[in-house]
Amino acid sequence: MQSEILSIGTELLLGEIVDTNARYISSRLRDIGVNVYRRVTVGDNPDRLLTAFKESLGRSDIVIATGGLGPTDDDVTAKCLASALGRGLYFDESAWDSIRQSYLRRGRLLDETSSSARKQASIIEGGFFIPNPVGTAPGQGVEVDGKLALLLPGPPSEMQPMFESHVIPLITKNFSGLTPIYCVNLNVAGLCESMVGELLADLLESSNPTVAPYADSGQVRVRIAARGADKGEALAKISDVEKEVRRRLSPYVYGKNEETIEMAIGRLLVRKGLTLAVAESVTGGLICHRITEVPGSSRYFKMGMVAYHPEVKISTMGIPPHAVHREDAANEEVASGMAESVRLLAGAAVGLATTGFAGPEGGSDKEPVGAVYIGISHKRIGITAERVIFSGSRSRIKVLAAQRALYLLYRLLTEPDKNRG
Amino acid sequence: MQSEILSIGTELLLGEIVDTNARYISSRLRDIGVNVYRRVTVGDNPDRLLTAFKESLGRSDIVIATGGLGPTDDDVTAKCLASALGRGLYFDESAWDSIRQSYLRRGRLLDETSSSARKQASIIEGGFFIPNPVGTAPGQGVEVDGKLALLLPGPPSEMQPMFESHVIPLITKNFSGLTPIYCVNLNVAGLCESMVGELLADLLESSNPTVAPYADSGQVRVRIAARGADKGEALAKISDVEKEVRRRLSPYVYGKNEETIEMAIGRLLVRKGLTLAVAESVTGGLICHRITEVPGSSRYFKMGMVAYHPEVKISTMGIPPHAVHREDAANEEVASGMAESVRLLAGAAVGLATTGFAGPEGGSDKEPVGAVYIGISHKRIGITAERVIFSGSRSRIKVLAAQRALYLLYRLLTEPDKNRG
Repeated sequence: MQSEILSIGTELLLGEIVDTNARYISSRLRDIGVNVYRRVTVGDNPDRLLTAFKESLGRSDIVIATGGLGPTDDDVTAKCLASALGRGLYFDESAWDSIRQSYLRRGRLLDETSSSARKQASIIEGGFFIPNPVGTAPGQGVEVDGKLALLLPGPPSEMQPMFESHVIPLITKNFSGLTPIYCVNLNVAGLCESMVGELLADLLESSNPTVAPYADSGQVRVRIAARGADKGEALAKISDVEKEVRRRLSPYVYGKNEETIEMAIGRLLVRKGLTLAVAESVTGGLICHRITEVPGSSRYFKMGMVAYHPEVKISTMGIPPHAVHREDAANEEVASGMAESVRLLAGAAVGLATTGFAGPEGGSDKEPVGAVYIGISHKRIGITAERVIFSGSRSRIKVLAAQRALYLLYRLLTEPDKNRG
Repeated sequence: MQSEILSIGTELLLGEIVDTNARYISSRLRDIGVNVYRRVTVGDNPDRLLTAFKESLGRSDIVIATGGLGPTDDDVTAKCLASALGRGLYFDESAWDSIRQSYLRRGRLLDETSSSARKQASIIEGGFFIPNPVGTAPGQGVEVDGKLALLLPGPPSEMQPMFESHVIPLITKNFSGLTPIYCVNLNVAGLCESMVGELLADLLESSNPTVAPYADSGQVRVRIAARGADKGEALAKISDVEKEVRRRLSPYVYGKNEETIEMAIGRLLVRKGLTLAVAESVTGGLICHRITEVPGSSRYFKMGMVAYHPEVKISTMGIPPHAVHREDAANEEVASGMAESVRLLAGAAVGLATTGFAGPEGGSDKEPVGAVYIGISHKRIGITAERVIFSGSRSRIKVLAAQRALYLLYRLLTEPDKNRG
C-alpha cells in the first residue's frame, strides 16, 4: 500500500517557506506503517494541480494534500481534486457550521453572505468534511475505488491536530493489516556519532528492531524501531534492544524520546533536593536560557550570571585580577572561580561556569578561538574544570560549549549515585 | 523557461529530516529569474528515480537533483540520470583528483583502489563534474538538447557553496535573457503584521516592485522585490519604494536584510559609546544569549544577571522584599529595580530587565501566565517600565518577551537622536 504527499502553494516554489508539513506527514505515516512513495510540490495553478492530482491518484492508494484551502480565488485545491475525480462540489451545511463556530471562537465577525467564506464550505460530492479546531478552513476527504484522498490546510498548527485526530484514525480504519512502526529514541551526550556506531556495530545490522544513530548539535540520538502488527510484541522487542543499548552506552544515555539534557538535569536536581547557579562567559546566556526552558525550573535554578566583561568577573565574581588579565584570559582558574563564586552568591548547591573564546575575533597565542573551559563546583564534591576545543562559527561554538557544560553537569549529578551503589 | 527540483533520499520520505535544500534552491532560482514548476521527492530506489528523472526532463528545461551521490550502493542518483538519458558513466580523472584532495584536506586516508570511493568519480558521458569544496562527493552536470541536468550532494553545507559558485553561473550562461529578481528586506519591530499591511495597503498592490509583509516571532519582515534585466534600474525602483516604506513605518524599521535587532542595538551602542547590562527573570537568559550572538558584543555588553529565585532578586539585585513577595511578584517596581540595579552593578550606561510569568504554572489572580514587565534604566534618561501580556507556550512567551524587550531598548537608543534633531 502506497501513499503520496502533495504540498500545494506558490510560496513553497518561491522558497519563501520550508515545507515542514511534508516531513511531519511522512514521519507519522511511517509510524502507522504506510509507505510514502513520493512527495510532490506544486503551485496554486489549476492546470498543474489537476495534473498532479491525476498522477498521484494513478500511482498511490492514499493521497494527502496540504495547502490551498483558503477563501481567496487562488486557493483552488478542492476544485482541482474534484475535477481530477470528475465530480462536482456542494455546499456542506456541517462544514459551514464549523466555519461559523471558528469565527465565534476567535471573536471575529462572519459575513454569512460572503461568497469567499462560503467557498470554504464546498465539499466534493461523495466526500466528507474534516473539522479544523484551530483555524477557519475545514479539511475534507473522499474515498474512490478503495483509494483515499485527503485535503488539509497548510498552516502546521492547523494541519497537525487534524492529522492526528482524523487522518490517522481514517487510514487505520480504511486500510486494515497495516503493520505500524513503534519506536524509542535514546538521547546520548558525551560520545560522538562514530563512537556510538562502533559500540553498537552489530546492533546496527539488525532489521527488526532497527537501530540507527543520528548526530545533532553535539549529541547523538539512537533510534530503535520495530515493526509489528502486535503492539505488545513490538514493544517487547524494542525493550530488549533498549536494555542492551543502555548497557553498552552507559553512562552516556541521559534521556528517552523528548527528554532534553536540561530536563534530565532538572529531574536529578529535584530528586536530590539540590539547587543550581550558572555563570557564563563564552556561552553568553545560552545555558541559562536552556535551563529555564524547562517548566518548573524555578524550583531548582536560583540564578545565572553572564560575566562578559573582564572587570565584571573581578568585581562581581571575585576572580583574581591576575587570572583575568593573563594572556589566556580564559583559563581553568577563571572557570573554577566563576563556578564556585556563583554557587556561593546564589546560595546554591551546585555552580556551573563557562569561559572561552567564541570568536570570530579574539583568542590568543596560547588559546585559539574555540577554546572553552568549563568549571563545576559542588558543595560536597568540590571543584573541577575541563578544557575543550571546538570549531565553527561563533554561534556553533556557543551551542557546543553549552551542550558540553550541561553534559558534564549531568555526569556529576549521576556519579554520586554510582559511588554509593 | 521552467525548472524542477528533485530531492532524493529515503530519509526524506521517512520524515527523518526536513528538506531545506528544496527551499534554498527554490529561493535562489527565483532570485535569478528561473521559475520552479514542480518539486519532487523520491527515495533511493532505482526504478522510481529513473521514472522521476524521465518525467522531470520531459517537462522542464532545468532539473536540479540533490542527494544520493555518496559512495555506497544505495546511492544511485548518477546511474539513474545516466539511464534516463540513455548514456553510460565513465571514470573522470579530474573528479577523482578532487576526491583525493578532499581526503587530504580532512587528513583522512583514501584507499585508491576502493571501488566505492572510485564510484563517486563516475561522470555521465558528455557531462562535467562540479567540485565539492566541503565534502567528498563531487557534483556533476550534463547538457542535453538545450536542457540542463545537475546533481548536487544532499548535505546543505556542501550543496550551498556548490550551488552559488557553479550552478548559478552555469544557468545564467546557458539561459540568456533571464530577468533576475532583486530584493531588499526591511526588518520591523513593534508593529503587528496587520498594522504593517494597513500602513502599506496601496504599496502591496503594486507589481514591480512587489511589497509583501511576513510575520515571524514577534516581528515583521517587509520584502521589496523588483524584476528587471537592468540591475541598476531594478535597484533604483527598489530604492524609491524602500524610502517610502521607511517613511511610513518609521521608527519601527530597525534593520535591513540580515540585520537582527540585537545587531542594530549593538551598532547604536557602539556609535553612542554606551555599554549595556541585562537582568532577566522571565526570559531566563535568552536576551543575553541573543545579545552575545553578535560578533564584537564584548565591546558593549558588560554583564547579565538571571535573577530567577525571589531571594536572589533581593540579595543580589537589592529589590525590596515587599515588592518581590507581593501577590503579583512580577510588577513594575521589580522590573525597574532590576534594570537600575544591574546597570549600577555592571557600571554600565543602560540596564534592561524582564520579569513575569512564563508558565505553564504560576501567575496569580492579579497577573496571569504571560504577563511580562520590562524595565529600562538609562544613566541620563532615567527609568521606565512597561507591562505586556503574551500568550502561548512557555518557550513562546520567552521569545516574545525577549523580542519586545529588545525592541523597547532599540527605541530608547534611537529616541535621543530624534530629540536632538
